[in-house]
Amino acid sequence: MTIEMAKGTKDVPPEEEIAKQKIVTTLKKTFELYGFSPLETPVLERLETLSAKSGGGSEILKEVFKLTDHGGRNLGLRFDLTVPLARFVAMNPSIKMPFKRYQIGLAFRDGPIKLGRYREFWQCDVDTVGSKSMLADAELIKLAFEFFKKIGIDVVIEVNNRKVLDGIMEALAIPEKERNGIIITIDKLKKTPLEDVKKELNQKGMYDKQIKEMFEIFDMEGSNEEELAKLRKIIKSTKGLEGLDEIEKVLSYIKSKDLVFRISLARGLDYYTGTVFEAFMKDESIRSSLAGGGRWDKMIGQFVGQGEFPAVGISFGIDTIVDALKLKNKLASVKTLTKAYIIPIKTDKEAVKLVDKLRSEEISAEIDLMQRGISKNLDYANSLGIPFVIFLGEKELKEGKLKLRDMKSGKEELLSEKELIKTLKG
Amino acid sequence: MTIEMAKGTKDVPPEEEIAKQKIVTTLKKTFELYGFSPLETPVLERLETLSAKSGGGSEILKEVFKLTDHGGRNLGLRFDLTVPLARFVAMNPSIKMPFKRYQIGLAFRDGPIKLGRYREFWQCDVDTVGSKSMLADAELIKLAFEFFKKIGIDVVIEVNNRKVLDGIMEALAIPEKERNGIIITIDKLKKTPLEDVKKELNQKGMYDKQIKEMFEIFDMEGSNEEELAKLRKIIKSTKGLEGLDEIEKVLSYIKSKDLVFRISLARGLDYYTGTVFEAFMKDESIRSSLAGGGRWDKMIGQFVGQGEFPAVGISFGIDTIVDALKLKNKLASVKTLTKAYIIPIKTDKEAVKLVDKLRSEEISAEIDLMQRGISKNLDYANSLGIPFVIFLGEKELKEGKLKLRDMKSGKEELLSEKELIKTLKG
Repeated sequence: MTIEMAKGTKDVPPEEEIAKQKIVTTLKKTFELYGFSPLETPVLERLETLSAKSGGGSEILKEVFKLTDHGGRNLGLRFDLTVPLARFVAMNPSIKMPFKRYQIGLAFRDGPIKLGRYREFWQCDVDTVGSKSMLADAELIKLAFEFFKKIGIDVVIEVNNRKVLDGIMEALAIPEKERNGIIITIDKLKKTPLEDVKKELNQKGMYDKQIKEMFEIFDMEGSNEEELAKLRKIIKSTKGLEGLDEIEKVLSYIKSKDLVFRISLARGLDYYTGTVFEAFMKDESIRSSLAGGGRWDKMIGQFVGQGEFPAVGISFGIDTIVDALKLKNKLASVKTLTKAYIIPIKTDKEAVKLVDKLRSEEISAEIDLMQRGISKNLDYANSLGIPFVIFLGEKELKEGKLKLRDMKSGKEELLSEKELIKTLKG
Repeated sequence: MTIEMAKGTKDVPPEEEIAKQKIVTTLKKTFELYGFSPLETPVLERLETLSAKSGGGSEILKEVFKLTDHGGRNLGLRFDLTVPLARFVAMNPSIKMPFKRYQIGLAFRDGPIKLGRYREFWQCDVDTVGSKSMLADAELIKLAFEFFKKIGIDVVIEVNNRKVLDGIMEALAIPEKERNGIIITIDKLKKTPLEDVKKELNQKGMYDKQIKEMFEIFDMEGSNEEELAKLRKIIKSTKGLEGLDEIEKVLSYIKSKDLVFRISLARGLDYYTGTVFEAFMKDESIRSSLAGGGRWDKMIGQFVGQGEFPAVGISFGIDTIVDALKLKNKLASVKTLTKAYIIPIKTDKEAVKLVDKLRSEEISAEIDLMQRGISKNLDYANSLGIPFVIFLGEKELKEGKLKLRDMKSGKEELLSEKELIKTLKG
């Protein structure tokens, strides 16, 4: 038997998982501070639900893991948390609006494996359903600033509006049916050489003149206000002007020099309808975005069977955030949360009592379970990075003392149980 | 388009998910106090791994959700967290022993849907790998007592040893090859009428006399010590006596009148080799076990390609624990963790500032995102059970005051921002 993992999956050993859980805890706290509640939907969904036209489109459907149950029903593993949210809202018509929920869960895509891309990965989504107000959009951007401040990463958040992009394309006389495809190409700007992007725009039907003019708009310089003023002269369509109004509104709610209006920000997904935004490391030491989102006013309506059904959301890239924190040395990689390791020296019964006592004092503790000698026990404590080791010798015990070793300094002390607990708690 | 869920799956709405997360947090804290670290393994595993003979056996394999990736590889969704742990240990030979890990994750079984049984469900496992010491078994039982004490459920933990059961069957001259099947039947005792169990034992080859004698042993009365002493006279095989020694050792480590030696405790899984235990509500208001586990010394060895490889584990039934807490009225069902809801009355800008301020003070707050009137806003706050509502009227604002309503008592107060924050924090 060969022992391997499924392709595109990985194990997360304790030293990584402890770090990840710390971030997840901070994310949850931030979400709850902003009034979002947790929702859980299953990994298994009916294939029909996942294939809904309004969802990811046919492109994503190629990457859905498909399966059938014993009853022959066609199922799939969810590829994101947005389609299941739309399904949940459609199935729960009595839910109160706005419905502010977050969800942290696994998603699956049977796609090509590139560096850092997995077929099974964590998604972390926060969405406000039911509100048209730009206050909802602004709230999510503030929430992102708050979270990154809490974990100590300096970010810039770029913001744009799909309607503004539409207005620009309208002003450049690009036919409506070509615009969605062009947006997908524009989204590649940060990751792809400029010439390749221009070539692709060309292939998608844009004339050289249109491309030149579009990039003149994208490369415009000035403050957020100056750029918006210039766009007011270029954009004429109702939709485009609506986009400008919306973005001004969003900007008005957030006082931060780290919020930047970027006209070329597009986001790669089909379903965005208005505001879009992405958070990047200020020093660009990682170029991928750490979080991103936007308004998606149409998908739920298609599930519910009505027109628009407003919704706006943000997604946090947990793995990229872990990478960013590691890069900034802000995430200690620990293998265990255990604080003290107890080595009995022919004092098994007393050692068991001591470990019980420490745990009852909320001190995370372990005891030798292998009946090993002192040096092997020290090796173990050392390799796991346990900060303190306690030796229980017969002689010392008779005198009511325990020997505590600080594994970092190597310093050893003879202490009473009371003193020991005080030191470990300190 | 019909909107339905996949059969055997469910959504967990905020009011249930908030309760569940509270329990999960307590579980994690307890595990970490006892020196266990989190591990994450993927949901997707190679079918070959899941089909390993040492795992759940052919019975469980019928219930594995099977699928293939684009490369035509045969995969399955994990049906528990034990087989993946064995796979992880086999693939990481340099891991330090004992390896004390916990994992909380989804598992999947395409089985018949009964009341309360789902095809996608949470597993919560804690295992110590690498230690033969009964101290490891005892530690898990203590950990269970500690957790149930923390959440306020009185439990009895029943303990037994598979080797003792084997010794009894040996004494009754039951052939070795029939013993595993008989254990599976014995496991049904708490859930099935006695006569049905006896009938099944009969069908599995036991004579009436053997059944009678076995139940005489099972129904033995006395303290743990008395029962063990009586068994020492019945059991003669080396294996059986080893089991008695082991259980005495386990009992010696734990001083609790709620730890009961129950000779007929079997546990339904094939892979247990020694200690087995289950936690039940003391008042039996729920008859299913809330947690259970045991020693499984053989499975990892089969993955690693050697003989025995000791391991002992416990599994907590999160859903049953939620049910138990609800039954005891110890789990408030809240729909949101939001503490204050802000209603602007033509004071949008000031309201936004206030919500920012409250959040910066770590007070979980929401603001009207629907531009609704006062009564609709109150309905919303009420239906979500938000404890406080703040009204921002123009007149009051001019006087530097805000109106705070306690939604439970209906009491209203005019407060300064500072007083408001103090009240909400109190």
